[in-house]
Formats: sequence, structure tokens, C-alpha cells
Amino acid sequence: MVAVVDAWITPFGKRRESIFDLAKESSLPLVRKYRDVVDFVVVSNSYSGEFNGVSGLNNLISTYLSLEHVPSVRIDNTSGSGGSAVLVGKSLLESGTARAVLVIGVEKMSTMRTREVTSVISSLLPPRERSVGISVPSLASIMTKEYMARYNARREAIAEVAVKNHRNGAKNPFAHIRKEVSLSEVLSSPVVADPLTQYEFCPISDGSASLLLVRDEDALSFTGRPVYIKGIAMGSDSSHITDREDLLEMRSVRRAGELAMRTSKVDRVDFAELHDMATILEIVEAEALGLLKRGEGWRSYLEGETEIHGEMPINTSGGLNSKGHPIGASGIAQLVEAFHQIRGEAGERQVKDARTGLTLSMAGFGNSATVAIVGDEP
Amino acid sequence: MVAVVDAWITPFGKRRESIFDLAKESSLPLVRKYRDVVDFVVVSNSYSGEFNGVSGLNNLISTYLSLEHVPSVRIDNTSGSGGSAVLVGKSLLESGTARAVLVIGVEKMSTMRTREVTSVISSLLPPRERSVGISVPSLASIMTKEYMARYNARREAIAEVAVKNHRNGAKNPFAHIRKEVSLSEVLSSPVVADPLTQYEFCPISDGSASLLLVRDEDALSFTGRPVYIKGIAMGSDSSHITDREDLLEMRSVRRAGELAMRTSKVDRVDFAELHDMATILEIVEAEALGLLKRGEGWRSYLEGETEIHGEMPINTSGGLNSKGHPIGASGIAQLVEAFHQIRGEAGERQVKDARTGLTLSMAGFGNSATVAIVGDEP
Ligand SMILES: [Ca+2]
Repeated sequence: MVAVVDAWITPFGKRRESIFDLAKESSLPLVRKYRDVVDFVVVSNSYSGEFNGVSGLNNLISTYLSLEHVPSVRIDNTSGSGGSAVLVGKSLLESGTARAVLVIGVEKMSTMRTREVTSVISSLLPPRERSVGISVPSLASIMTKEYMARYNARREAIAEVAVKNHRNGAKNPFAHIRKEVSLSEVLSSPVVADPLTQYEFCPISDGSASLLLVRDEDALSFTGRPVYIKGIAMGSDSSHITDREDLLEMRSVRRAGELAMRTSKVDRVDFAELHDMATILEIVEAEALGLLKRGEGWRSYLEGETEIHGEMPINTSGGLNSKGHPIGASGIAQLVEAFHQIRGEAGERQVKDARTGLTLSMAGFGNSATVAIVGDEP
Repeated sequence: MVAVVDAWITPFGKRRESIFDLAKESSLPLVRKYRDVVDFVVVSNSYSGEFNGVSGLNNLISTYLSLEHVPSVRIDNTSGSGGSAVLVGKSLLESGTARAVLVIGVEKMSTMRTREVTSVISSLLPPRERSVGISVPSLASIMTKEYMARYNARREAIAEVAVKNHRNGAKNPFAHIRKEVSLSEVLSSPVVADPLTQYEFCPISDGSASLLLVRDEDALSFTGRPVYIKGIAMGSDSSHITDREDLLEMRSVRRAGELAMRTSKVDRVDFAELHDMATILEIVEAEALGLLKRGEGWRSYLEGETEIHGEMPINTSGGLNSKGHPIGASGIAQLVEAFHQIRGEAGERQVKDARTGLTLSMAGFGNSATVAIVGDEP
């Protein structure tokens, strides 16, 4: 397997810098240290064409990093690009194709207005569903209503996801929204997709995050404290939401989680970074992964169990909800948070005795999911 | 290493089908046979957002193939996406991440007019060079003039690349332009980038090509005649053309070729599929790869050496020049041709005793290049 031996991230938010400068900002600190050993660059990005009028992004970035002699590719899997890029990086290393892979996640979205961004992202939906008005927020609405009805879940519990994630994000110097919000603020803010309100969806952000990946056996020659990827797996599901028997099931997430746990021989983790594009998703994902009990996950939010000092801390970084969701960067940023947690470098957000963690990078509304289990041992 | 155990291709050209239907047309024949074993789908595509208003292409295609449970990613490296996708596929297999990888290359370009397509593709150039009017055709013009001046090469020799490739394409039922052209027709057609004329550039095409890749040791359980990838390597160079000391050097191509030859322990091949986006490129690439003698390559075209029955057959498929260049499909289509040649299934285009071949999939104007060496033995 492989290890993360260094990691860096830019502040997320509405940034003035170009997509190239954002990518450099997160990767140059790594390149300065490891220029001579990086022998593959994997760029995680989905929409440079649509948002920035740029193609061949991987080659342009490596040229700007003066790594023009180093092979590179761009990996796209929409919101789940980061997890896919790490899975490809791991495969390049384990197959002997590369020895040190620089993974750069980047997206620059604020070039467009919210309405245009939503339209671009809707291009991931099957034309048949797009044409009848299904959108990602409308799916979150349906999921919320179904979850509340089936499990008698309280509306406040779902809103608490946003309260907790904003509280965490306020402690994260790289988060987009660094401000706490109260439960009543969340509940009374404008409704985006009934019953979910504005604070319950991630903002539109620019940002970049980078990792240096090497094989386990090489890790200690880079740092005394590598963070090992103990298992990583991808699950998949139909892009036709109408084909799914149960919207709450999240088959891709469950399957990726089971495979990653099995490979890593880990049966519980000390913290998790999940794909909380909407509040409801964090709860349903945590249940699909077995982090919270099925149908009971919402109760954990009322009881503080998912807080930084709770029994199962989720999204200590602030999550997509508060940290922001620059599409191609998000999955990489989750691993940056895990890297800091496991090394005990998470400052105010530090989880006590964090030795193993889980990250979930997800595409679309769960048509693809990559779960990584990380830890302080191989 | 890995092997191609099955391959399929659509006719290239201006197609009425959607990008999804094109992808299905090339991949469904493979999926029908191997549905139960395919455990990863790699989609090679660069511009589905720009040309088709589609994102998350890999998940949509796998859903339409009823492979919704199979993990997938999209690999982009502009014109060189195909080679990159095969390199990623090989890494997924060799690392044990997958056992049978379906690689689908697809691009649907005819949704736009030529001028718009050119503008989209120019988005791969560094902004600094794009802003001073550099374009891919203008680079081909500079390269042609430099080559002719340095080596006293005859203009006719360069045009002969198009004559030969159209002759081959006329024999290929999947080629976009199935019509022979004479030397005088090539020379007298409208100039696109002085001195190169219209027939010397690839047309704008739609199309798709698919491969099934497995590990060497599994290959014989799929087919009695696998085509083995004996070596595959990627080379890279600056995206700033103005940073290259010598435009004729094609460092990425040379480096990828050297590495692939070394891995495969092959010192000569029986045929090659090169990236002839413009006629001059085929000659300069063949020299960089050592297939033709440096500075003398042009003479081979006057003497018929690169014809199907010559000493070093190049682009028996018709090449990008006549077969067409649907960006994400091109690198995969080259391997489809190699698959047919080595299995003796190339019909009128069959090279005698074709046991080893080389394919070159290239991005931009050589900022990335992937060379594969294939053969009838591991
Ligand atoms: Ca999928």
C-alpha cells in the first residue's frame, strides 16, 4: 500500500488567483522539498474547461511548477475526483509505474455566478432526469423527507450537521466560512430545497490541496511520521436515481466502505471526513459506512457524538459545508485534514488519540464513492 | 505487464449519434462477452463539457452499459488521453486494483463548427502563448519550415505523408476520409498553415474505440491470440513551446519511446501508428523514435518505405490524417489497429509478418507522449 508523506492546502473561498496560481499555492511547498523525486503528477479537476476555459490542465500546471519533464494526467470523477485521483496514484505506485506521485486537487469556480455553476454541475445528471427538472439540491430534499419519515427523525437533528460543521470550520484557517451559526439561524435561513436551507448546502469555493504519495516501504525516508493509506476502494451505483430501489441506501458508499475496511483490517476509526454537500448526506453516509447506527444517526447529532470531542468526530475540518467544496480539490482536502489529525497537527480541531481515520470522496449523488482508511501504521 | 484481449471501434466521421451512443457502439460488443468480469471502466475523453455539455461522463457511460456497479474514472490528457488511459489501466491491473479493465475512448466533436473547435482546442496552450496568436497549426507551420531548411527536405516528401495516409485510410472501413488523394491534389489544396495544406491536417471527427485489458497471466483465458503490451511509458515536455531549445527534438516522444523500448526489450518494430495531426509531425516523430533516420526521414516517403508493404509501415490505419482524430478516442484507436495487425486481421491493410508494433499517443504539440510497444508474445 502507499503513504501520504507531505500535504498542503490553500485557504478555500472566493479567491482572486487563477486556477494555475491556486494549484501552485498548494503544491509548490511540496515541490520545493521533493522536486528531484516526484516522477508523476496526478491532477484532480473536473471543470477547468467550463469554469476557466482551460484544457490540458495537468500539462500546464506541471510546466508552471518547472516539472515539465514529469509525466502527468488529469483525473475527473466530478465531486469524487479527489478520491479517484488518490486511487490512481496508489495504482501508479504499486504497479511500479511511479515512485513518488504528486496529487494536486484544484478547482476555480467563482468565475461564474451561482446559477451558472448549478447549471454546469447539473450536466452530470442523466439527460432523461435533467429534462424532468431533477437537480442535486432536489435530490437532497427528497432524501431528507424520506429519512425523516422513515426514521421519525427530528428536523433539528439534520440542521445540527450545519451547526457542528460551521463550529469546526470556524477553527480551520483554511475554511471558506469561518463563522459559527446557531440552530435557529440555520432553520430560519432561506430554504433552498425544502426543508433544507442555505446553511445546509456547501458554498461555491475556489481552492487547491496537494499530497505527496509514496509506497509504504519508502515512506520513512521522507518523514518520520507518514500517514499510511491502509485501504482504499471505489464503489459505484447507477446514475439514474430513479433506478435505485432505496435512495437512503447509498450502495456505492457502503460498498467502498466495506472493501476499504476489509483491506485495511480496521473495524473502527477515530474520525471521518464525509461528503456533506448537503447536511442530510453526512448522516446517511455515516450510516451507510457503519459509523453511526442505521436510522439512529440523527440522534447522534442531538447528543454531540459527532463533535470533535465526541465518540465519532465527523468533519472536523468543517466539511464541504463550511470549509467549501472546490470540486476537484475536496477529496484531496479531506486527506490533508486526516494527515494533520493523525500527526497531531490539527490545532484547535485536534481529535484526541487520532490514530485511524476515514475519508469519503463522492461523485454526483452517490454514483461513485471512494473510501480511504488512513492510520499511523501501515 | 498487461494484454489487450479484445478490441472494437466505431466508424469515425461526422456521426449523428450522441457521445453516449458512440461510446456504447464501441464498447457493447466487449461488454456483451465480458460483462461478468469487467471490474473497472476507464473513459478516455477530453472535451465532453465543451463539446457536449456533459460531465461525469464515465458514470453516465457505465450506467448506460448496465455496468453501474463497476468503478470508473475519466482520464484526460487532451489529444494524448488514449495513451494515458491505457497507462492508468495497466497500473490498475498491475497493482491488483482491478482484474479486467474496459478502456473506452470517445469524443463527439461535430456539435461545433471548425472555428469553435479550434478555439476550444487552443485552450490547451499556455495563456501567454495563446495571447500572441500561437496555435497548433501555426506550430506545425514553423516546424515544417525549420525541418525543410535544416535538412534540405523536399516539400513533396512532406505532402507524401498525406498521400500515403489517405491511401491507407481508403482501405479502412472505420476511417473518416475513405478516398485517395494525389500528390498534386495535396499540394494544390488550400493552405492552412504555410506551406501545409488542408489535406495535411486531420479532419474533425466523432468516434469511439474500446479495449479490454487484463494481466498477461490471465490473457489466454480470454483469447487464444492476446496482443501483449510489452512496454508502455509516458514522456513529458514544457507546454511553453518557446522554452524548447529545438522544436524538432520532441523530447517527450523520444523519452517515452526509449523507456518503452527498454522495458519491452524490443529494438525494432514491424509497424507504427503515430500522431499525424499534421503531416510534418509523422516524420519528426518517426525520427525521434528512431524508426527513421534523423534528418533523412523525408526521403523514406519518396521511396515508399513507410507504405504498408514498405520496410517501416507507418499509420496503416490511415492515421489521424485520414482515419480522423476524435480526441479521446485516437490513442485507443491506434491500439485497435495494432491489435488487428498483430492478429493478422487487418484485411487489405495487413502488414506482412506483423509481430511487434509501436503506438504513439501525443498531447498538445508534444507536451506529453505515451508510447506502447505491442507484440504477439509477453
Ligand atoms: Ca458509476
